[in-house]
Amino acid sequence: MKKRIAIDMDQVLADTLAHHLAIYNREHDDNLTRDDLKGRRLYEAVDEVRRERVRSYPRALDFFRHIPVMPGSQEVVADLHKRFEIFITTAAMDYPTSFTAKYEWLREHFPFIEDSHIVFCGDKGIIAADYLVDDSPYNFERFMGQGLLFTAPHNIHETRYPRVHDWLGVREYFRQA
Amino acid sequence: MKKRIAIDMDQVLADTLAHHLAIYNREHDDNLTRDDLKGRRLYEAVDEVRRERVRSYPRALDFFRHIPVMPGSQEVVADLHKRFEIFITTAAMDYPTSFTAKYEWLREHFPFIEDSHIVFCGDKGIIAADYLVDDSPYNFERFMGQGLLFTAPHNIHETRYPRVHDWLGVREYFRQA
Repeated sequence: MKKRIAIDMDQVLADTLAHHLAIYNREHDDNLTRDDLKGRRLYEAVDEVRRERVRSYPRALDFFRHIPVMPGSQEVVADLHKRFEIFITTAAMDYPTSFTAKYEWLREHFPFIEDSHIVFCGDKGIIAADYLVDDSPYNFERFMGQGLLFTAPHNIHETRYPRVHDWLGVREYFRQA
Repeated sequence: MKKRIAIDMDQVLADTLAHHLAIYNREHDDNLTRDDLKGRRLYEAVDEVRRERVRSYPRALDFFRHIPVMPGSQEVVADLHKRFEIFITTAAMDYPTSFTAKYEWLREHFPFIEDSHIVFCGDKGIIAADYLVDDSPYNFERFMGQGLLFTAPHNIHETRYPRVHDWLGVREYFRQA
Protein backbone atom coordinates (compact mmCIF):
# COMPACT_ATOMS: atom_id res chain seq x y z
CA MET A 1 0.00 0.00 0.00
CA LYS A 2 1.23 3.47 -0.85
CA LYS A 3 2.30 5.69 2.02
CA ARG A 4 0.11 8.71 2.56
CA ILE A 5 1.19 12.36 2.54
CA ALA A 6 -1.14 15.11 3.78
CA ILE A 7 -0.27 18.54 2.41
CA ASP A 8 -1.41 21.88 3.83
CA MET A 9 -2.64 24.57 1.46
CA ASP A 10 -1.92 28.10 2.77
CA GLN A 11 1.80 28.97 2.72
CA VAL A 12 2.60 25.52 1.35
CA LEU A 13 0.72 24.95 -1.94
CA ALA A 14 -0.54 28.53 -2.07
CA ASP A 15 1.62 31.58 -1.49
CA THR A 16 -0.97 33.14 0.78
CA LEU A 17 1.53 35.49 2.38
CA ALA A 18 2.50 37.02 -0.99
CA HIS A 19 -1.19 37.74 -1.62
CA HIS A 20 -1.71 39.11 1.87
CA LEU A 21 1.37 41.37 1.61
CA ALA A 22 0.28 42.67 -1.80
CA ILE A 23 -3.16 43.66 -0.50
CA TYR A 24 -1.67 45.26 2.60
CA ASN A 25 0.98 47.23 0.70
CA ARG A 26 -1.51 48.43 -1.91
CA GLU A 27 -4.04 49.53 0.68
CA HIS A 28 -1.54 51.28 2.98
CA ASP A 29 0.98 52.42 0.38
CA ASP A 30 3.62 50.47 2.29
CA ASN A 31 6.54 48.30 1.27
CA LEU A 32 6.56 45.36 3.69
CA THR A 33 8.38 42.22 2.50
CA ARG A 34 8.84 38.67 3.78
CA ASP A 35 12.15 39.78 5.32
CA ASP A 36 10.28 42.14 7.65
CA LEU A 37 8.35 39.21 9.09
CA LYS A 38 11.02 37.01 10.59
CA GLY A 39 9.42 35.03 13.38
CA ARG A 40 6.15 36.94 13.04
CA ARG A 41 2.80 36.73 11.33
CA LEU A 42 1.88 39.70 9.12
CA TYR A 43 -0.67 41.08 11.57
CA GLU A 44 2.00 41.12 14.28
CA ALA A 45 4.32 43.21 12.08
CA VAL A 46 1.94 46.07 11.30
CA ASP A 47 0.86 49.06 13.39
CA GLU A 48 -1.70 48.17 16.00
CA VAL A 49 -4.33 50.40 14.37
CA ARG A 50 -4.06 48.40 11.14
CA ARG A 51 -4.07 44.99 12.80
CA GLU A 52 -7.80 44.26 12.73
CA ARG A 53 -8.05 45.41 9.13
CA VAL A 54 -5.18 43.12 8.10
CA ARG A 55 -6.75 40.17 9.91
CA SER A 56 -10.01 40.77 8.08
CA TYR A 57 -8.61 40.34 4.52
CA PRO A 58 -9.07 36.56 4.42
CA ARG A 59 -12.74 36.99 5.27
CA ALA A 60 -13.41 38.45 1.82
CA LEU A 61 -15.31 35.90 -0.26
CA ASP A 62 -12.73 35.77 -3.04
CA PHE A 63 -9.51 36.17 -1.01
CA PHE A 64 -8.52 32.53 -1.43
CA ARG A 65 -9.51 32.35 -5.08
CA HIS A 66 -6.65 34.51 -6.41
CA ILE A 67 -3.63 33.37 -4.47
CA PRO A 68 -0.48 32.59 -6.47
CA VAL A 69 0.70 28.99 -6.58
CA MET A 70 3.83 28.31 -4.53
CA PRO A 71 6.77 27.87 -6.94
CA GLY A 72 7.46 24.24 -7.79
CA SER A 73 4.46 22.86 -5.91
CA GLN A 74 2.50 21.70 -8.96
CA GLU A 75 5.39 19.73 -10.48
CA VAL A 76 6.52 18.14 -7.23
CA VAL A 77 3.03 17.20 -6.02
CA ALA A 78 2.23 15.70 -9.45
CA ASP A 79 5.42 13.69 -9.14
CA LEU A 80 4.78 12.54 -5.55
CA HIS A 81 1.23 11.65 -6.59
CA LYS A 82 2.65 8.73 -8.59
CA ARG A 83 4.40 7.14 -5.61
CA PHE A 84 2.29 8.28 -2.64
CA GLU A 85 -1.36 8.76 -1.79
CA ILE A 86 -1.79 12.54 -1.56
CA PHE A 87 -4.43 14.35 0.49
CA ILE A 88 -4.78 18.13 0.66
CA THR A 89 -5.66 19.07 4.24
CA THR A 90 -6.57 22.68 4.82
CA ALA A 91 -8.06 24.59 7.72
CA ALA A 92 -11.07 26.31 6.21
CA MET A 93 -13.04 26.66 9.43
CA ASP A 94 -11.26 29.86 10.47
CA TYR A 95 -12.90 31.51 7.47
CA PRO A 96 -16.16 29.69 6.75
CA THR A 97 -16.70 31.88 3.69
CA SER A 98 -13.57 30.41 2.11
CA PHE A 99 -14.74 26.86 1.39
CA THR A 100 -15.87 27.33 -2.20
CA ALA A 101 -12.97 29.61 -3.18
CA LYS A 102 -10.44 27.14 -1.78
CA TYR A 103 -12.11 24.23 -3.50
CA GLU A 104 -12.17 26.05 -6.86
CA TRP A 105 -8.54 27.09 -6.47
CA LEU A 106 -7.53 23.46 -5.95
CA ARG A 107 -9.58 22.31 -8.93
CA GLU A 108 -7.85 24.89 -11.11
CA HIS A 109 -4.25 24.44 -9.98
CA PHE A 110 -4.16 20.81 -8.83
CA PRO A 111 -6.71 19.13 -11.13
CA PHE A 112 -5.06 15.72 -10.64
CA ILE A 113 -6.04 15.68 -6.94
CA GLU A 114 -9.33 13.81 -6.64
CA ASP A 115 -12.24 15.55 -4.88
CA SER A 116 -12.27 12.68 -2.41
CA HIS A 117 -8.72 13.61 -1.38
CA ILE A 118 -9.47 17.20 -0.38
CA VAL A 119 -10.07 17.65 3.36
CA PHE A 120 -11.25 20.79 5.13
CA CYS A 121 -10.54 20.48 8.82
CA GLY A 122 -9.46 22.49 11.83
CA ASP A 123 -7.56 20.12 14.09
CA LYS A 124 -5.07 18.07 12.04
CA GLY A 125 -4.99 15.46 14.78
CA ILE A 126 -7.94 13.93 12.89
CA ILE A 127 -5.78 13.20 9.82
CA ALA A 128 -4.70 9.58 9.32
CA ALA A 129 -1.51 9.91 7.26
CA ASP A 130 2.16 8.99 7.40
CA TYR A 131 3.43 12.52 6.73
CA LEU A 132 2.09 16.05 7.03
CA VAL A 133 3.74 18.94 5.16
CA ASP A 134 2.65 22.12 6.93
CA ASP A 135 3.93 25.57 7.89
CA SER A 136 2.25 25.62 11.33
CA PRO A 137 4.19 23.67 13.96
CA TYR A 138 1.15 23.40 16.24
CA ASN A 139 -0.49 21.18 13.61
CA PHE A 140 2.15 18.53 14.30
CA GLU A 141 1.49 18.35 18.03
CA ARG A 142 -1.53 16.09 17.73
CA PHE A 143 -0.69 14.61 14.31
CA MET A 144 -0.11 10.84 14.38
CA GLY A 145 2.58 10.75 11.66
CA GLN A 146 5.79 12.58 10.82
CA GLY A 147 5.54 16.36 10.49
CA LEU A 148 7.63 18.15 7.88
CA LEU A 149 7.85 21.90 8.45
CA PHE A 150 7.59 24.05 5.33
CA THR A 151 9.53 27.25 5.95
CA ALA A 152 7.55 30.47 6.28
CA PRO A 153 8.72 33.70 7.92
CA HIS A 154 6.57 33.09 11.00
CA ASN A 155 8.11 29.66 11.75
CA ILE A 156 11.86 30.30 11.30
CA HIS A 157 12.62 29.94 15.03
CA GLU A 158 10.94 26.53 15.29
CA THR A 159 13.43 23.69 15.84
CA ARG A 160 11.38 20.65 16.86
CA TYR A 161 10.64 19.26 13.38
CA PRO A 162 12.50 18.42 10.18
CA ARG A 163 12.31 21.41 7.87
CA VAL A 164 12.16 22.04 4.13
CA HIS A 165 12.71 25.49 2.65
CA ASP A 166 10.80 25.05 -0.61
CA TRP A 167 9.32 22.45 -2.94
CA LEU A 168 12.73 21.27 -4.13
CA GLY A 169 13.35 20.48 -0.48
CA VAL A 170 10.11 18.49 -0.33
CA ARG A 171 11.14 16.51 -3.43
CA GLU A 172 14.52 15.78 -1.87
CA TYR A 173 12.99 14.71 1.48
CA PHE A 174 10.70 12.17 -0.18
CA ARG A 175 13.30 10.84 -2.59
CA GLN A 176 14.19 8.09 -0.13
CA ALA A 177 10.91 7.90 1.81
CA MET B 1 -6.96 10.28 26.58
CA LYS B 2 -10.57 10.30 25.47
CA LYS B 3 -11.54 7.92 22.70
CA ARG B 4 -12.57 9.59 19.50
CA ILE B 5 -15.89 9.20 17.66
CA ALA B 6 -16.35 10.51 14.12
CA ILE B 7 -19.99 11.11 13.20
CA ASP B 8 -21.39 11.47 9.70
CA MET B 9 -23.90 14.21 8.97
CA ASP B 10 -26.38 13.23 6.22
CA GLN B 11 -28.83 10.52 7.31
CA VAL B 12 -27.16 10.38 10.72
CA LEU B 13 -27.27 13.83 12.37
CA ALA B 14 -29.47 15.27 9.64
CA ASP B 15 -32.58 13.60 8.28
CA THR B 16 -31.55 14.34 4.71
CA LEU B 17 -33.85 11.68 3.29
CA ALA B 18 -36.94 13.25 4.91
CA HIS B 19 -36.03 16.55 3.25
CA HIS B 20 -35.32 14.89 -0.08
CA LEU B 21 -38.62 12.96 0.01
CA ALA B 22 -40.58 16.11 0.90
CA ILE B 23 -39.18 18.02 -2.07
CA TYR B 24 -39.75 15.09 -4.41
CA ASN B 25 -43.35 14.49 -3.28
CA ARG B 26 -44.23 18.16 -3.47
CA GLU B 27 -42.74 18.59 -6.92
CA HIS B 28 -44.26 15.43 -8.39
CA ASP B 29 -47.46 15.28 -6.37
CA ASP B 30 -46.39 11.83 -5.22
CA ASN B 31 -46.54 9.99 -1.90
CA LEU B 32 -43.25 8.11 -1.58
CA THR B 33 -42.22 7.11 1.95
CA ARG B 34 -39.16 5.56 3.57
CA ASP B 35 -40.90 2.17 3.32
CA ASP B 36 -40.81 2.40 -0.46
CA LEU B 37 -37.04 2.64 -0.40
CA LYS B 38 -35.96 -0.61 1.21
CA GLY B 39 -32.46 -1.37 -0.02
CA ARG B 40 -32.53 1.55 -2.44
CA ARG B 41 -31.55 5.19 -2.67
CA LEU B 42 -34.36 7.61 -3.54
CA TYR B 43 -33.13 8.17 -7.09
CA GLU B 44 -33.25 4.42 -7.68
CA ALA B 45 -36.90 4.27 -6.59
CA VAL B 46 -38.31 6.91 -8.94
CA ASP B 47 -39.20 6.76 -12.62
CA GLU B 48 -36.18 6.97 -14.87
CA VAL B 49 -37.36 10.27 -16.37
CA ARG B 50 -37.34 11.86 -12.91
CA ARG B 51 -34.00 10.44 -11.82
CA GLU B 52 -31.71 13.25 -12.96
CA ARG B 53 -34.03 15.86 -11.49
CA VAL B 54 -34.07 14.05 -8.11
CA ARG B 55 -30.29 13.76 -8.10
CA SER B 56 -30.00 17.50 -8.72
CA TYR B 57 -31.87 18.62 -5.56
CA PRO B 58 -28.80 18.63 -3.30
CA ARG B 59 -27.02 20.94 -5.72
CA ALA B 60 -29.32 23.81 -4.73
CA LEU B 61 -27.36 26.29 -2.61
CA ASP B 62 -29.70 26.06 0.39
CA PHE B 63 -30.64 22.35 0.24
CA PHE B 64 -28.49 21.44 3.23
CA ARG B 65 -29.48 24.50 5.26
CA HIS B 66 -33.05 23.38 5.98
CA ILE B 67 -32.78 19.71 6.77
CA PRO B 68 -34.54 18.49 9.92
CA VAL B 69 -32.38 17.24 12.77
CA MET B 70 -32.43 13.46 13.25
CA PRO B 71 -34.55 12.71 16.35
CA GLY B 72 -32.46 12.30 19.48
CA SER B 73 -29.16 13.25 17.87
CA GLN B 74 -28.66 16.54 19.71
CA GLU B 75 -29.18 15.07 23.17
CA VAL B 76 -27.10 11.96 22.58
CA VAL B 77 -24.19 13.75 20.89
CA ALA B 78 -24.16 16.36 23.68
CA ASP B 79 -23.99 13.51 26.15
CA LEU B 80 -21.24 11.60 24.30
CA HIS B 81 -19.32 14.88 23.99
CA LYS B 82 -18.64 14.71 27.73
CA ARG B 83 -16.95 11.30 27.58
CA PHE B 84 -15.54 11.19 24.04
CA GLU B 85 -13.81 13.49 21.61
CA ILE B 86 -16.39 14.10 18.88
CA PHE B 87 -15.65 15.02 15.27
CA ILE B 88 -18.30 15.62 12.62
CA THR B 89 -17.06 14.13 9.34
CA THR B 90 -19.15 14.89 6.31
CA ALA B 91 -18.64 14.41 2.59
CA ALA B 92 -19.20 17.86 1.16
CA MET B 93 -17.12 17.40 -1.99
CA ASP B 94 -19.97 15.72 -3.91
CA TYR B 95 -21.75 19.07 -3.74
CA PRO B 96 -19.13 21.83 -3.52
CA THR B 97 -21.91 24.41 -3.19
CA SER B 98 -22.93 22.84 0.10
CA PHE B 99 -19.97 23.78 2.32
CA THR B 100 -21.35 26.97 3.81
CA ALA B 101 -24.89 25.63 4.26
CA LYS B 102 -23.59 22.53 6.04
CA TYR B 103 -21.32 24.57 8.26
CA GLU B 104 -24.15 26.95 9.22
CA TRP B 105 -26.49 24.02 9.88
CA LEU B 106 -23.97 22.50 12.28
CA ARG B 107 -23.40 25.84 14.03
CA GLU B 108 -27.17 26.19 14.55
CA HIS B 109 -28.03 22.67 15.67
CA PHE B 110 -24.78 21.47 17.28
CA PRO B 111 -23.28 24.67 18.71
CA PHE B 112 -21.23 22.72 21.27
CA ILE B 113 -19.13 21.12 18.50
CA GLU B 114 -16.00 23.24 18.06
CA ASP B 115 -15.20 24.55 14.56
CA SER B 116 -11.92 22.68 14.78
CA HIS B 117 -13.86 19.42 15.07
CA ILE B 118 -15.82 19.76 11.84
CA VAL B 119 -14.27 17.91 8.90
CA PHE B 120 -15.34 18.04 5.26
CA CYS B 121 -13.83 15.14 3.40
CA GLY B 122 -14.56 12.65 0.66
CA ASP B 123 -12.67 9.49 1.55
CA LYS B 124 -13.18 8.63 5.24
CA GLY B 125 -10.02 6.54 5.18
CA ILE B 126 -8.27 9.81 6.06
CA ILE B 127 -10.07 10.03 9.44
CA ALA B 128 -8.02 9.09 12.51
CA ALA B 129 -10.68 8.01 15.01
CA ASP B 130 -11.67 5.00 17.11
CA TYR B 131 -15.27 4.85 15.86
CA LEU B 132 -17.20 6.09 12.84
CA VAL B 133 -21.00 6.34 12.94
CA ASP B 134 -22.15 6.42 9.32
CA ASP B 135 -24.99 5.23 7.08
CA SER B 136 -22.74 4.34 4.11
CA PRO B 137 -21.02 0.97 4.50
CA TYR B 138 -18.37 1.84 1.89
CA ASN B 139 -17.05 4.50 4.25
CA PHE B 140 -15.96 1.73 6.63
CA GLU B 141 -13.90 -0.15 4.07
CA ARG B 142 -10.85 2.09 4.39
CA PHE B 143 -11.59 3.45 7.87
CA MET B 144 -8.95 2.53 10.47
CA GLY B 145 -11.34 2.21 13.45
CA GLN B 146 -14.64 0.47 14.21
CA GLY B 147 -17.55 1.30 11.93
CA LEU B 148 -21.06 1.56 13.39
CA LEU B 149 -23.78 1.45 10.74
CA PHE B 150 -26.66 3.87 11.27
CA THR B 151 -29.77 2.36 9.69
CA ALA B 152 -31.15 4.03 6.58
CA PRO B 153 -33.47 2.46 4.00
CA HIS B 154 -30.65 2.10 1.48
CA ASN B 155 -28.42 0.03 3.84
CA ILE B 156 -30.89 -2.47 5.35
CA HIS B 157 -29.36 -5.44 3.53
CA GLU B 158 -25.83 -4.72 4.79
CA THR B 159 -24.60 -7.31 7.30
CA ARG B 160 -20.84 -6.71 7.68
CA TYR B 161 -20.95 -4.11 10.47
CA PRO B 162 -22.57 -3.61 13.87
CA ARG B 163 -25.77 -1.64 13.37
CA VAL B 164 -27.81 0.90 15.30
CA HIS B 165 -31.36 1.81 14.32
CA ASP B 166 -31.54 5.28 15.84
CA TRP B 167 -29.85 7.59 18.33
CA LEU B 168 -31.08 5.60 21.33
CA GLY B 169 -29.18 2.73 19.77
CA VAL B 170 -26.05 4.88 19.51
CA ARG B 171 -26.37 5.84 23.20
CA GLU B 172 -26.74 2.18 24.13
CA TYR B 173 -23.75 1.11 22.00
CA PHE B 174 -21.44 3.61 23.67
CA ARG B 175 -22.71 3.00 27.18
CA GLN B 176 -19.95 0.44 27.74
CA ALA B 177 -17.39 1.72 25.20
